[in-house]
Amino acid sequence: MSALEQVLSHVDDHLEESIERLFDLVRIESISTDPAYKAECQKAAEWLERELVALKFDASVRSTPGHPMVVAHTPDQAEGPHVLFYGHYDVQPVDPLELWEKPPFEPSITEMSDGSKQLVGRGTSDDKGQLLTFLEACRAWRSVTGKLPLNTSIIFEGEEETGSPSLDAFLAENKDELKADLALVCDTTMWDRETPAITVQLRGMMKENLVIKAADRDLHSGAYGSAARNPLHVISSIIADLRDAQGRVQIPGFYDGVEELPAAIKKQWDSLGFDGATYLRDVGLSISAGEEGYSVLEQITSRPTCEVNGVWGGYNGLGSKTVIPAEANAKLTFRLVGKQEPDKIREAFRKFVNSRLPDDCTVEYESVGGEFGPLTVDTNMPETQKVIKALSDEWNKEAALMGSGGSIPITTEFRRVLGMETLLVGFALEDDRIHSPNEKYDLKSFHKGIRSWVRIIAALAA
Amino acid sequence: MSALEQVLSHVDDHLEESIERLFDLVRIESISTDPAYKAECQKAAEWLERELVALKFDASVRSTPGHPMVVAHTPDQAEGPHVLFYGHYDVQPVDPLELWEKPPFEPSITEMSDGSKQLVGRGTSDDKGQLLTFLEACRAWRSVTGKLPLNTSIIFEGEEETGSPSLDAFLAENKDELKADLALVCDTTMWDRETPAITVQLRGMMKENLVIKAADRDLHSGAYGSAARNPLHVISSIIADLRDAQGRVQIPGFYDGVEELPAAIKKQWDSLGFDGATYLRDVGLSISAGEEGYSVLEQITSRPTCEVNGVWGGYNGLGSKTVIPAEANAKLTFRLVGKQEPDKIREAFRKFVNSRLPDDCTVEYESVGGEFGPLTVDTNMPETQKVIKALSDEWNKEAALMGSGGSIPITTEFRRVLGMETLLVGFALEDDRIHSPNEKYDLKSFHKGIRSWVRIIAALAA
Repeated sequence: MSALEQVLSHVDDHLEESIERLFDLVRIESISTDPAYKAECQKAAEWLERELVALKFDASVRSTPGHPMVVAHTPDQAEGPHVLFYGHYDVQPVDPLELWEKPPFEPSITEMSDGSKQLVGRGTSDDKGQLLTFLEACRAWRSVTGKLPLNTSIIFEGEEETGSPSLDAFLAENKDELKADLALVCDTTMWDRETPAITVQLRGMMKENLVIKAADRDLHSGAYGSAARNPLHVISSIIADLRDAQGRVQIPGFYDGVEELPAAIKKQWDSLGFDGATYLRDVGLSISAGEEGYSVLEQITSRPTCEVNGVWGGYNGLGSKTVIPAEANAKLTFRLVGKQEPDKIREAFRKFVNSRLPDDCTVEYESVGGEFGPLTVDTNMPETQKVIKALSDEWNKEAALMGSGGSIPITTEFRRVLGMETLLVGFALEDDRIHSPNEKYDLKSFHKGIRSWVRIIAALAA
Repeated sequence: MSALEQVLSHVDDHLEESIERLFDLVRIESISTDPAYKAECQKAAEWLERELVALKFDASVRSTPGHPMVVAHTPDQAEGPHVLFYGHYDVQPVDPLELWEKPPFEPSITEMSDGSKQLVGRGTSDDKGQLLTFLEACRAWRSVTGKLPLNTSIIFEGEEETGSPSLDAFLAENKDELKADLALVCDTTMWDRETPAITVQLRGMMKENLVIKAADRDLHSGAYGSAARNPLHVISSIIADLRDAQGRVQIPGFYDGVEELPAAIKKQWDSLGFDGATYLRDVGLSISAGEEGYSVLEQITSRPTCEVNGVWGGYNGLGSKTVIPAEANAKLTFRLVGKQEPDKIREAFRKFVNSRLPDDCTVEYESVGGEFGPLTVDTNMPETQKVIKALSDEWNKEAALMGSGGSIPITTEFRRVLGMETLLVGFALEDDRIHSPNEKYDLKSFHKGIRSWVRIIAALAA
């Protein structure tokens, strides 16, 4: 039996323990966006540091102005390739809590009617389960061969879900330490349950919060109704104007730098048999609301978006209240593609809003931070081919080169700050309910994800 | 000295005692909306019953499914006109308590820099002070002449601030007992500090809550953005469509039954010197958002409104969340005028929303209840002219016939259930801070309010 086969076999034999470790990590309530969970984020970082030290990494928790980073290196660096693996230990908030079937931080295994087993809990998929696939692969190599065949550095972040505010500076300050030949990121999905994938296109992101204010106090609608400007009407009109009936964003200049999909990629995508109608039907929708003239797959991956993620203002309790509120709030995010630039989109958006603001209103903008440009991966690198083969071997199916509608800012930063390309390999599934109640990670994703990394480590070391 | 002059003189001479009685009543914490104050509501009803018995009324506390009514009649009914006086002894909650300069239920007199004296405390104006102006007028008549010259019935309610849930049934069950020639309601304001007023127009009300649902769960904007219907965009578009740029409501049929202001009323209003610009500037606004072609005064009193009082959906915490929420909510209220009917407006609104609903969305409506039609008082009744003269005599200024943007449902019910017209006469001022901290009632309102009722009683008895 080859070393590789022995390591894979070790993964199979110790899967129960791997699951237990994942559950330990999921139990830590590391919600990065809410300051009340600051200590939990610290705890998750320290948990990872302990595990890395146990795997004989030189590991340390590094403070930042926000939540800490965990950085680790194989001490026994040899000649040959050197990778930097990235994951994040922070998770999304859990509201609405009442929709969770079990408490979000009490992970469990649920067996589905199709026989599959799901690891359920906040972070099981995004990104605690995913990052552990790599750690458990390292563990198996160490256990069986006493060493890791690939020079490996690791960075775990605790602010991915809040837009990575501390990341750029940290990378820049630790450039020499973190620079490697290639970055590996495990925060993406497979093409489908059977088909592994490398994500070769990622959308960029721009986030903007705004508050529109009118009167200097809440007003009684009987005394001021219709004469007094109602900021809820104002913000609704602005949001309504953002897209036309064909789903096209109406902000002037928004589509500057947006390119049509290259014919080769479009052809591969067409061959994957993505069924947009089924994709939407699975979440209870019957028709696409996106740009006319583009497939659902293009809408969610290669086209830019403008989405309102939250609106609030006025009374939201029981019954009714005859109030004209003093202000109305909205949170928006934009997904960017091609050569769209976050700063230009922000400027165009603000101009769009300002031009629609009645004279008796003011608007305040809050830049939430964490904006970054879109990314296109070089699919011609030899490493790409090695990873494709490793994945295809494990899953018995050719790995897909897919676009992702999501955004992983670190990839842009790795290129910009560290001059390094990134391969994005992940085992999450589209139905993992990341960011939603009842988040889960397929046990098969976890198990074969670990096995995939065992193979990728071997392939990249060769 | 005529009997009327003697009674007016008696009012002046016993003002201190009238104030003491008001303070006794204000000290009772009769907050109707909070079950914790149920016993206090009962106590206020019993206090009023005792006072009425002392004034030789046949008075009784009558139980309802909620807080009790107090009903009273002059025992010495004679030939001639018969009025039913209405007031309410319940008060609004006192939160935010920290904004009160003195405890809300420890009434006191504050002397202002302009020399005016203010009776301060919860309910001093709304409606304990106002209802006592009538009772103290009755007291003065009894003290001086041994009788009340006008056949008088009284109903005091304890649920006005919670939407009068028990009122309709009580009126219907006691129709024969309560029917009179005319109802008098003291729960409105003067035109200004110098100008007494009869409120001759009140707006009706229709309330509607709605929730628009799209996908069957919250979605990640990276995975579904733009392709998946975002209910926040849908609800925003619907709200945006409700009014055009000229402030006109776009619901088909909305203006059916809305009449232009009669020329005589419009002329009188124009003469009152209402300054719409100042009215708006006082709350931080610079321009009217209401229907073009109508003055601010018309917009807030004689024109119908469609106001969104609350909108919420998606994420509203710190930072951002890349979510496409499963649902979006809104609360709306409509103020109705002329011959607008709440049921028809509700139907037209729902049709308007339904026609704008994408095929992949559903909408659920919640009728909050408490809707009622608008009221226009017959200003040609001889009683109206008598009350105008009595008020003008007392204040040495012609009484205004004013419209109120607010809504007093009891007037609609008096007409519908008891077939009786209502005259609304009150002495509150716009700056009385009813429903807010530091509620007050001008001592002049209280004193001259009592004197006004002395004159009205004489005028209506004649």
